[in-house]
Amino acid sequence: MSKTIKKIGVLTSGGDAPGMNAAIRSVVRTCAYHNIGCVGIYRGYQGMIEGDFKEMGPRSVNNIVNKGGTILKSARSREFMTPEGRKKAFDNIKKAEIDSLVVIGGDGSFTGAEVFNSEFDIPVIGIPGTIDNDIFGTSFTLGYDTALNTVIDVIDKIRDTASSHNRLFFVEVMGRDAGHIALNAGIGAGAEEILIPESDLGLERLLDSLKKSKLSGKSSSIVVIAEGDKIGKNVFELKDYVESNLPEYDVRVSVLGHMQRGGAPSCFDRVLASRLGVRAVETLLEGKSNFMVGILGDKITLTPLEQAIKGHSEIDRELLRVSEIMSI
Amino acid sequence: MSKTIKKIGVLTSGGDAPGMNAAIRSVVRTCAYHNIGCVGIYRGYQGMIEGDFKEMGPRSVNNIVNKGGTILKSARSREFMTPEGRKKAFDNIKKAEIDSLVVIGGDGSFTGAEVFNSEFDIPVIGIPGTIDNDIFGTSFTLGYDTALNTVIDVIDKIRDTASSHNRLFFVEVMGRDAGHIALNAGIGAGAEEILIPESDLGLERLLDSLKKSKLSGKSSSIVVIAEGDKIGKNVFELKDYVESNLPEYDVRVSVLGHMQRGGAPSCFDRVLASRLGVRAVETLLEGKSNFMVGILGDKITLTPLEQAIKGHSEIDRELLRVSEIMSI
Amino acid sequence: MSKTIKKIGVLTSGGDAPGMNAAIRSVVRTCAYHNIGCVGIYRGYQGMIEGDFKEMGPRSVNNIVNKGGTILKSARSREFMTPEGRKKAFDNIKKAEIDSLVVIGGDGSFTGAEVFNSEFDIPVIGIPGTIDNDIFGTSFTLGYDTALNTVIDVIDKIRDTASSHNRLFFVEVMGRDAGHIALNAGIGAGAEEILIPESDLGLERLLDSLKKSKLSGKSSSIVVIAEGDKIGKNVFELKDYVESNLPEYDVRVSVLGHMQRGGAPSCFDRVLASRLGVRAVETLLEGKSNFMVGILGDKITLTPLEQAIKGHSEIDRELLRVSEIMSI
Amino acid sequence: MSKTIKKIGVLTSGGDAPGMNAAIRSVVRTCAYHNIGCVGIYRGYQGMIEGDFKEMGPRSVNNIVNKGGTILKSARSREFMTPEGRKKAFDNIKKAEIDSLVVIGGDGSFTGAEVFNSEFDIPVIGIPGTIDNDIFGTSFTLGYDTALNTVIDVIDKIRDTASSHNRLFFVEVMGRDAGHIALNAGIGAGAEEILIPESDLGLERLLDSLKKSKLSGKSSSIVVIAEGDKIGKNVFELKDYVESNLPEYDVRVSVLGHMQRGGAPSCFDRVLASRLGVRAVETLLEGKSNFMVGILGDKITLTPLEQAIKGHSEIDRELLRVSEIMSI
Repeated sequence: MSKTIKKIGVLTSGGDAPGMNAAIRSVVRTCAYHNIGCVGIYRGYQGMIEGDFKEMGPRSVNNIVNKGGTILKSARSREFMTPEGRKKAFDNIKKAEIDSLVVIGGDGSFTGAEVFNSEFDIPVIGIPGTIDNDIFGTSFTLGYDTALNTVIDVIDKIRDTASSHNRLFFVEVMGRDAGHIALNAGIGAGAEEILIPESDLGLERLLDSLKKSKLSGKSSSIVVIAEGDKIGKNVFELKDYVESNLPEYDVRVSVLGHMQRGGAPSCFDRVLASRLGVRAVETLLEGKSNFMVGILGDKITLTPLEQAIKGHSEIDRELLRVSEIMSI
Repeated sequence: MSKTIKKIGVLTSGGDAPGMNAAIRSVVRTCAYHNIGCVGIYRGYQGMIEGDFKEMGPRSVNNIVNKGGTILKSARSREFMTPEGRKKAFDNIKKAEIDSLVVIGGDGSFTGAEVFNSEFDIPVIGIPGTIDNDIFGTSFTLGYDTALNTVIDVIDKIRDTASSHNRLFFVEVMGRDAGHIALNAGIGAGAEEILIPESDLGLERLLDSLKKSKLSGKSSSIVVIAEGDKIGKNVFELKDYVESNLPEYDVRVSVLGHMQRGGAPSCFDRVLASRLGVRAVETLLEGKSNFMVGILGDKITLTPLEQAIKGHSEIDRELLRVSEIMSI
Repeated sequence: MSKTIKKIGVLTSGGDAPGMNAAIRSVVRTCAYHNIGCVGIYRGYQGMIEGDFKEMGPRSVNNIVNKGGTILKSARSREFMTPEGRKKAFDNIKKAEIDSLVVIGGDGSFTGAEVFNSEFDIPVIGIPGTIDNDIFGTSFTLGYDTALNTVIDVIDKIRDTASSHNRLFFVEVMGRDAGHIALNAGIGAGAEEILIPESDLGLERLLDSLKKSKLSGKSSSIVVIAEGDKIGKNVFELKDYVESNLPEYDVRVSVLGHMQRGGAPSCFDRVLASRLGVRAVETLLEGKSNFMVGILGDKITLTPLEQAIKGHSEIDRELLRVSEIMSI
Repeated sequence: MSKTIKKIGVLTSGGDAPGMNAAIRSVVRTCAYHNIGCVGIYRGYQGMIEGDFKEMGPRSVNNIVNKGGTILKSARSREFMTPEGRKKAFDNIKKAEIDSLVVIGGDGSFTGAEVFNSEFDIPVIGIPGTIDNDIFGTSFTLGYDTALNTVIDVIDKIRDTASSHNRLFFVEVMGRDAGHIALNAGIGAGAEEILIPESDLGLERLLDSLKKSKLSGKSSSIVVIAEGDKIGKNVFELKDYVESNLPEYDVRVSVLGHMQRGGAPSCFDRVLASRLGVRAVETLLEGKSNFMVGILGDKITLTPLEQAIKGHSEIDRELLRVSEIMSI
């Protein structure tokens, strides 16, 4: 039988993502709406271990819906991977009378939540927050839409200078295991070629494509590359390779890096965060546990945490074809 | 039996929306990809009547994916509402050997396309382009996501000054018949109250809500109002009404207006435009006509134009509840 | 003989402007650097009367350099205009051991500072903070550069839709007594005509200019109008006037309003705020009073408050000529 | 005796910078205003050698005031460094009846202009266009203000994630010989430390500063580094050095790169470009040659090209002190 929920702890864990603050705000205010307590846990699981808590009411989260980062801060905790660490964490939340958790983060954060739940029977709900969009069970993770806009905004700037000088740019974007950012931002920014982990384009085809692009009368080109693509060379080696094979090209490299994690969240991310926060709290109130809230189609849905962790978020193969047509 | 498509005409019609250029680019390049001709028709149906055409190849649409507005321009045409006007238009496209049309616009534009098709048997496909998101058969219209981001960006700025002065702002956004922009941007911007055509909040409840907001300790408030809301007063009358009933409030009004139609499209709009353009052309090539391409869930879909015109795009009632919880 | 400064009070007063937070931060940290105390006074002079104070150290102003608005809030105070009000204020700052003031604001705020100084011999220094740039003795006021960028960003969006529809837009910007924003943002946004209080263009010349613009082949036009221009009609009346005299024009109006006061400050405003804050504190430490710190040429300068209040900030007439040439 | 000017050639050369298009527009329209011809020369001096010219009228430069990059494109030309190359260029401009030149670019571009003038007696005027602000005789070069805003916008995003994770970021910005961007953007972004070519901070002092920063309670830090700083290590080596000496820091590196050259110009850059373009053309019309137009204080000024080339643009030492105080 499900226990009555009286006080929910909320934390952010793993890499931060725009929209996390909007999700925290939503969790806090939904708790207030239902007259239950809410405690902010700082620095993710590490803060649970250290008892770094703060009671939160609706006014604690004023004016954060539009702020990047996370007011609860995030950290990776090695200690939480040990039974001793988790025991400390449990003792702390028990002392603080926290009876359930909302965990905002990615795969790793959900795994921690699951283990913790299995050991101490604390109801947990996950909210997917990562710019990489690599979580099974949701079409969009918090921060992903914002990161896409950040990336195309930067590539628009790079294109200004690329087309003034008839240059080729290699732009590396985030995405170690998943090419969602590269594929969508690449289409959005009008990239001539997109290299992602999911598709092994190969060096030969890249050269062919660049040759064809030159012949077709394009004066400048942008190639978008996911961090984790499998072409076998890093972006600087790739530059050297292309320049030695296609001497007509003057290649410049831009590695976008951590700016992709920051910035005011897009409207899409703020609304999604608000919806997911409401559903996360209300799912706990319904007596459920071990689910991730997500969005599929236009509907807020529940996916068992186990599936969210094990499943793989596939890219949409149709987009590869769209990208190919667009770069004609 | 369906006719072979050899040359597609593309036009934008009605109010312009960010992403229209990305859609034009996609139509033009998809035609090139399939080795068929493409003709840009300027100023919508009026340009058809005047024969204002231009052959377009893949290089005609370089560097427009990120531009607001429409390079083909838009106009409303009274002449096209007459049989004589449409006959002239038909003669012109016949002379130019255009055998099918892609129409980017809203309800009115689709109605024109349908009538034209019924009279002259020219295959037509519609692409939904309007910031209002008020088209049945698609979860998102081109320009809507961009408009949402423009609106929250402006309201974020207004909030800076609102909270410095502890003021109440009424912000009017676009949406004559549909409250999509107001509802989503209102949640995204953290509005205390949202007035939309679909929900008759009533003046009493607005006053109650504002009183409650003051009591709850909020120092400043934003109320987002759709143009077409049914509260029975325009935004300036509403200001007077509230100030005379709640003298503790110092109300300011901001009418956002046409800026909502412009700006570089968001990544979401650019990718959506690219996908819809591909599908529009390929649907014609499959011998189909009288469909609108749209996105439902994550899939590109076809909706009969007739349904798209007659159907009504409902707001998501769940969002009204989210909005209420968020403004606690 | 000048008194030793041990604790500085800082306040923001009048209309808020981007860069005020950066100036507060600079004042607070410069105090810390020189080992003297600093007290934040909330809601301007009203907060002085109510004793709404907070001790501030270098960490009190973390992460505000990029925030619009003012963390100290602003208000207009009628009570401070009375001797009784000012006496209360003096008693409060004496109790709090505040021995000098830095006042961030405009004309009115400086007048208050001067009167207060004359009555109670409290050293005061002013920092010019207003988006209107209408202060004598400084080429730039805090917030002005940011407001210009906000305005051109919005007009760029409006131009997208204006040129898609071949329309004429009247855009009203802030500036009751001074046309600095209209003149500079008008040139920056490529306006065809600019109406400002300082130049009486006249209705006839406006019509001539619009006719000429049409003849010269421009398909769309933007006219930028300062709130306080003297053409004798408000912006909506002007629309009616032009439409009835030039029926070939379809006029739209956009009143930008308070969004011009908000937003993250530009780099120029942040650096200027940092420099002015340092100089304000160090001027007090040098035993001086009744000056405004400002920037003339590239140098930080001191202007007697009296002159800053009485003097008039002239527009640069050369810019009127540049504007005329640019709109050929 | 000075020759009568009838047709001016305008070109952009060297690294592109936001505002170049606004300057081109200004030159073209000022020529039209004075009823003289104007020819756009593509790809800088290389286009002169190849005769890549286009007659330009006021409508050729519609809607470019807000565009980054340069519609005339830019290139570096080795051939122009040879007498033969310059002879070809001269023959081409003579054939096109171009009798004078406006050169928009930096040091190198001005040197080319001077040599060309000395050999062929063609009047030349330079407009300083480079994001680096490293030209003697002007307080601001075109593109510099925009680049500063781009940089602080990105660092604001990085700070979101830095402060969520309590991390130290090294951000490398452009500036091989001059630290203007690093120094101003560093202050604007609230950097804890700024490394520029003009000041040899030294590794020891950097470590001291970072230790002090940690002790003072700052949870995250940003260090801004100019490309050309003289600390003797590149930014990645610096990261390793700091991490091995201060193991409490988790350092991330971000190299901003070419995005700094692009983007819509700021209002300041657009107005400056408009003013400089007018003055460049009118200086030629006054029969003068071999000057650079620039801005000193608030005035448009002339500096002999020779001085502009040989002189050195000094950073403002006061800013180093402001930066030190701000990072307390």
